[in-house]
Amino acid sequence: MKSGLLVVISGPAGVGKGSIVKEMMKLSDKVVLSVSATTRAPRPNEREGINYFFKSREQFEEMIRKDELIEWVEYCGNYYGTPREFVLGEIEKGHIVVLEIEVEGAANVRRLFPDSVLCFVLPPDYYELENRLRGRGTEDEETIKRRLQRAREEFQHIDEYDYIILNDTISSAAQRFMNIIESEQMKTHRNKDLINKFKNI
Amino acid sequence: MKSGLLVVISGPAGVGKGSIVKEMMKLSDKVVLSVSATTRAPRPNEREGINYFFKSREQFEEMIRKDELIEWVEYCGNYYGTPREFVLGEIEKGHIVVLEIEVEGAANVRRLFPDSVLCFVLPPDYYELENRLRGRGTEDEETIKRRLQRAREEFQHIDEYDYIILNDTISSAAQRFMNIIESEQMKTHRNKDLINKFKNI
Repeated sequence: MKSGLLVVISGPAGVGKGSIVKEMMKLSDKVVLSVSATTRAPRPNEREGINYFFKSREQFEEMIRKDELIEWVEYCGNYYGTPREFVLGEIEKGHIVVLEIEVEGAANVRRLFPDSVLCFVLPPDYYELENRLRGRGTEDEETIKRRLQRAREEFQHIDEYDYIILNDTISSAAQRFMNIIESEQMKTHRNKDLINKFKNI
Repeated sequence: MKSGLLVVISGPAGVGKGSIVKEMMKLSDKVVLSVSATTRAPRPNEREGINYFFKSREQFEEMIRKDELIEWVEYCGNYYGTPREFVLGEIEKGHIVVLEIEVEGAANVRRLFPDSVLCFVLPPDYYELENRLRGRGTEDEETIKRRLQRAREEFQHIDEYDYIILNDTISSAAQRFMNIIESEQMKTHRNKDLINKFKNI
């Protein structure tokens, strides 16, 4: 009764998407985070195939041409994209593949995989989000303002998602997310084989 | 973030619907079982407004005429139906109203309340169901055969439901059902107010 699933997680910068996914991976060994391809240079602690698949611009553009990416964007001069092969392979294994992507990418995934599950993470309130971004202490005021502006743009797309996950604490948010996954796996359209067994008794 | 919800539970006789709902009511005080109206005579241990709303045929037919029932059937010479007022009142209070009804009633509920959540309970396998029916020891062979035939008819309608709940143990089935409810409450279309708050920041 446990089919593989493609799950999108979006939400404003600073809302805690990364921490939620990490927590989910602790809760279930079925949950895998999709590894993106990028032309960005690796940072010292980043590893090939774990954090990213690192590609040259030529390699990345060839992946685009060969339709090897589910979605891709160019952002600050670098390409980022989701390799189709990795995602399909993991779903085939019955895994829950989580894509952490922006609202534009999510819309593309929905078009290509109507059966995917789209989740948007919200902070308890907007001011909490502002506090979290400032609390990091890693970004200057200009960057923080730009991220909050970007968050407000993203909020306009929440209706395109299936579920809202409130992130009050990381562990409750991860638990809510797991609930959604387990619930989606009980949908009738994901259990055709089982249903047919009972229909044909 | 917790809206009221109308939830239908169907499934073959003997699959354990009643026990699952009882267990759910222990897990959450938000869960209420819809009390049906019937023209059937009360059994010694049955109480008005708890087990059923007991009505005369005249009273029941007036309820039909006045459109006071969400769905109703005539079965073995008696009417059974779901009073609209009780259901709507409980949803208004933010409660999870569970209707334990047959496949025909479920289709009517879906038509009238497109937002309702339809769940079908399945036994781990068909033979388990047969065993449970025989194990009760309360029905004769004729009745058991009729119920199994009826079960096979009901299985043809599973696709009309949103979710399948496997009843391996009552407590896991009740937990799965609660998961579905919590997950449904996170759907974006049930959280318009919250979303608008973020859209209008």
